[in-house]
Amino acid sequence: MDEIKTLIDRMARGARRAARELARLSSSVKNDILLRTADRIVEAREGLQAENEKDLAAARDKGLSAAFIDRLTLSDKVIGSMADGLREVAALPDPVGEIPKMWKRPNGLTVGRVRIPIGVIAMIYESRPNVTIDAAGLCLKAGNAIILRGGSDAIHSNLALSSILQEVLAEFSVPGTAAQVVPTTDRAAVNELLKREGEIDVIIPRGGEGLIRFVAENSRIPVLKHYKGVCHVYVDRGADLDMAREVCFNSKVQRPGVCNAMEGMLVHRDIAEKFLPLMAEAFRDAGVELRGCERTCQLVPFARAADESDWGREFLDLILAVRVVDSMDEAIDYIASHGSNHTEAIITRDYARARRFLSDVDASLVLVNASTRFNDGGQLGLGAEIGISTSKLHAYGPMGLEELTTTKFIAFGDGQIRS
Amino acid sequence: MDEIKTLIDRMARGARRAARELARLSSSVKNDILLRTADRIVEAREGLQAENEKDLAAARDKGLSAAFIDRLTLSDKVIGSMADGLREVAALPDPVGEIPKMWKRPNGLTVGRVRIPIGVIAMIYESRPNVTIDAAGLCLKAGNAIILRGGSDAIHSNLALSSILQEVLAEFSVPGTAAQVVPTTDRAAVNELLKREGEIDVIIPRGGEGLIRFVAENSRIPVLKHYKGVCHVYVDRGADLDMAREVCFNSKVQRPGVCNAMEGMLVHRDIAEKFLPLMAEAFRDAGVELRGCERTCQLVPFARAADESDWGREFLDLILAVRVVDSMDEAIDYIASHGSNHTEAIITRDYARARRFLSDVDASLVLVNASTRFNDGGQLGLGAEIGISTSKLHAYGPMGLEELTTTKFIAFGDGQIRS
Repeated sequence: MDEIKTLIDRMARGARRAARELARLSSSVKNDILLRTADRIVEAREGLQAENEKDLAAARDKGLSAAFIDRLTLSDKVIGSMADGLREVAALPDPVGEIPKMWKRPNGLTVGRVRIPIGVIAMIYESRPNVTIDAAGLCLKAGNAIILRGGSDAIHSNLALSSILQEVLAEFSVPGTAAQVVPTTDRAAVNELLKREGEIDVIIPRGGEGLIRFVAENSRIPVLKHYKGVCHVYVDRGADLDMAREVCFNSKVQRPGVCNAMEGMLVHRDIAEKFLPLMAEAFRDAGVELRGCERTCQLVPFARAADESDWGREFLDLILAVRVVDSMDEAIDYIASHGSNHTEAIITRDYARARRFLSDVDASLVLVNASTRFNDGGQLGLGAEIGISTSKLHAYGPMGLEELTTTKFIAFGDGQIRS
Repeated sequence: MDEIKTLIDRMARGARRAARELARLSSSVKNDILLRTADRIVEAREGLQAENEKDLAAARDKGLSAAFIDRLTLSDKVIGSMADGLREVAALPDPVGEIPKMWKRPNGLTVGRVRIPIGVIAMIYESRPNVTIDAAGLCLKAGNAIILRGGSDAIHSNLALSSILQEVLAEFSVPGTAAQVVPTTDRAAVNELLKREGEIDVIIPRGGEGLIRFVAENSRIPVLKHYKGVCHVYVDRGADLDMAREVCFNSKVQRPGVCNAMEGMLVHRDIAEKFLPLMAEAFRDAGVELRGCERTCQLVPFARAADESDWGREFLDLILAVRVVDSMDEAIDYIASHGSNHTEAIITRDYARARRFLSDVDASLVLVNASTRFNDGGQLGLGAEIGISTSKLHAYGPMGLEELTTTKFIAFGDGQIRS
C-alpha cells in the first residue's frame, strides 16, 4: 500500500513538472512526437502483438467474453488505426496559444484570453489498449501531461505501448513523465490517483457506468464524464416518414452498443398509425426487439409491452423502447425526465417546432432531421475526441483538443493603475 | 435534521424545475425582472434597513469586529450600489442563445454551438447581504436558478431581500424557486446542499479560505472557486522604475485586503540597488511593513527579515514580502512554487521578456506593466462578476455572465445518417 502511494506520488509530481515543459513546446515538436510515435508503433508491431498475446492468453484462461477479447486485441488493423489516429491529431491545428478574443479597455489596457493546456490529465479506462495511444496523442498535442491507468487485463499491452512512448519522448528530450502508464494492476493505484488534487487537474474515466460512478464518487478532482447515453428520436406529426424511418433505423441499428445509439423512439399520435407498422417491420427484419407503450402494441402486434424500467433504459443492444405521444410537449417532457442529456433528435418538417425542440431540449447534442449517431468528435468536425461529456461544466458534448485546454487572461499595459 | 433534509430537497427540486422555465425566458423579461428588483430594493430601503438592524444588533451583541459589521451593513450606499449593479447587469448582452460558431460538414450537416444556462447554481457565502442580490442578478440574467445560502449573521437581511425577489418573480409569473434564500441558519442545510448533485449543477463558495475548503472537500458537485490570491509583481532589470513604483504601490496599497492585491514583490538584482530604497520609502510612508530576503534587508535597513512562512503568504494587509532575484527565470520559478495561480505581473521594457513572462507564468491573469488590481470582471471588461476562479476547469479568472453558461451542440440536417 505504501509502495503504491510512493509510486503514484512520484508519477503525479513528475507529471506536474512535465506539464510546465509541455506547455512551452512548439507545435512542430509536439506534432513530430506524434508522428514518430505513429511510425514506431507500426514498426514495433510484432513486439506489441507478442505482449498483447500475454494479455489475450490470460483473458482466454479467465473465460472472458468474445467481445471483451475483441476489444483487447491489438490486431494489425487496430495498430494501423492507432497510428492513423496519431497522424490525424498531428494534422489538427494546435489549440495552445490561440487568442480567441482581445479587446481594449477605456484606460488603454489591452486584455485578451489565450488558450493554454489544462496541465495534468488522468485517464482511467477499461481494457482497450488503443485508448492508451489515442488519449496520449490528444493530451500531448494539447500540451498536457497524462497519466494512463488502463484495465488490468491489458497491462502487458499498455506497458509495451508505454515503452514506445517513453522511447520517443526521450528522443525529443521531453521528460518521460509527460505520458506515463501506471505500471501496476493494483487497484489501490486508482484510489491514490483520485486523491492527487494538488497534481492532477482533471480525471477522464471511460468505460462502463460502474467504473465512471466509482471515479466520480471517490474523487475530489473534477471529473469529465458521461454515465450513459439514453438517446431518443422524436418523430413529429407531419414528418417526412421515409426520412424518419431511415434516421431512426440508422440511430438504432448502425451500431447499437454505443452511447449515441437511439434507445427510445417517440412518435406523435397523428402519424403513429402510418409510421409505426412499417418502421416496426424494418426493425423486426434487423432483429430489433420492440418494447412499446399500449398504443404501440395495438399498432404493432409483435411488439412486447414495455415495463416501467424500459423507459429511460440504456439497452446498448438491439432493443428499443417505443412510445406514442400526444404532443411535442409531451415528447420534450419525456426526454427531460427519461433522457441522459446526451443526444436527442427530432424529425420534422415544421420550422417553428424544429426551433422549439432545439431550444427546449437540454442535451449535449440536439439534432433536427439527422441520426443520433453523429454525436462524435470526428463526425461533428472537432477532429478526434477523448470522450463525450454530459457534465455541464467545462465541456458538454464531444471533447476534442479544445476541451483539453482552458484559457487564461493576459493584459498589456503601459503603467495602468487602478483608481 | 430530517426537516432540513426535506426543506433542501424541496428547494433543490423546485430550482431544477424553475431552471427549465428560466432557460426559455426572453432577454427582455429577464432584464425587466432585474430592473424591477432594482427599483423595489430602493423603494423598500427602510424596511430592509429595519431587518438589517436586527442582524447588526445581534452582531454588536456578539462583539463582532468593526470590519465585519461594516460588511454586514445595508447602508443607503450599499443599497444604491446593489440597485446599480442590477441595472448594469440588465444592460449587458444576454449570453443565452449566442451561437459562437457554426460550420458545415461535408455531408451537409450544419453543426453549431449554442450558449445555454448551466441550470441550478448554489452560492454559499459569508455575511455580506449585497452578495444575495448581486449573485441573484447575474444568475437570473444567465438563465440559471439560484439557491443562496448566506452567513447566518445576515439571515434577517437576506430574508428581507428574498421577499423582494419573490414578489418581483411572482409579478412576472416566474416560479419563486428561480431564486431562493435558504431560510434557516442551521449548518446542516449546507451539508444537504452539497449532496444534491442530481439537482445542483455547480456550487460557488465565496468567503474565507476555511469556508471554501469546507465546501470543496465535502461536495460532489463541481465547485468554482479560488482559495486565495497570492499575487506578485516582478520588476525586471531595465524596467521603467517610475512606472514600477507606481504599479507596485497601487498593487499593494490601493486595497490591501482583497484577493488581487500584491503579496510578494520580486526585484531583479541589477536594479535592486536603485529601485528598492525609494520604493521601500514609499511603502513605509503608506504604513506597509516590508519582510525581505537578505539582500533586501541590506538595501532597506527598516525592512524586517522575512521568515520562511512569509514566502507565498496571503497577508490581506499592509504587509509585503520582498525578494531580490538573480534572473527572470528565478522569478518565474518562484511564482510557480509560491503563487496561487491568481494574478501575476511583470514590469519590463524588454519585448522578448514580456512575451516569455506572459507565456510561462500560469495564472488566471498575467499582466505586463499594469497593476494586479485589474483582475476583476468589471475592470477587464466582462461586466459584473460572481467571483474569480483559479480552478482550471470551466472558468479560469473572473467569472461573468458567460462563465455562468455552457454550450450545447446543435445540428441541422436533411435526413443525414451515418455510414
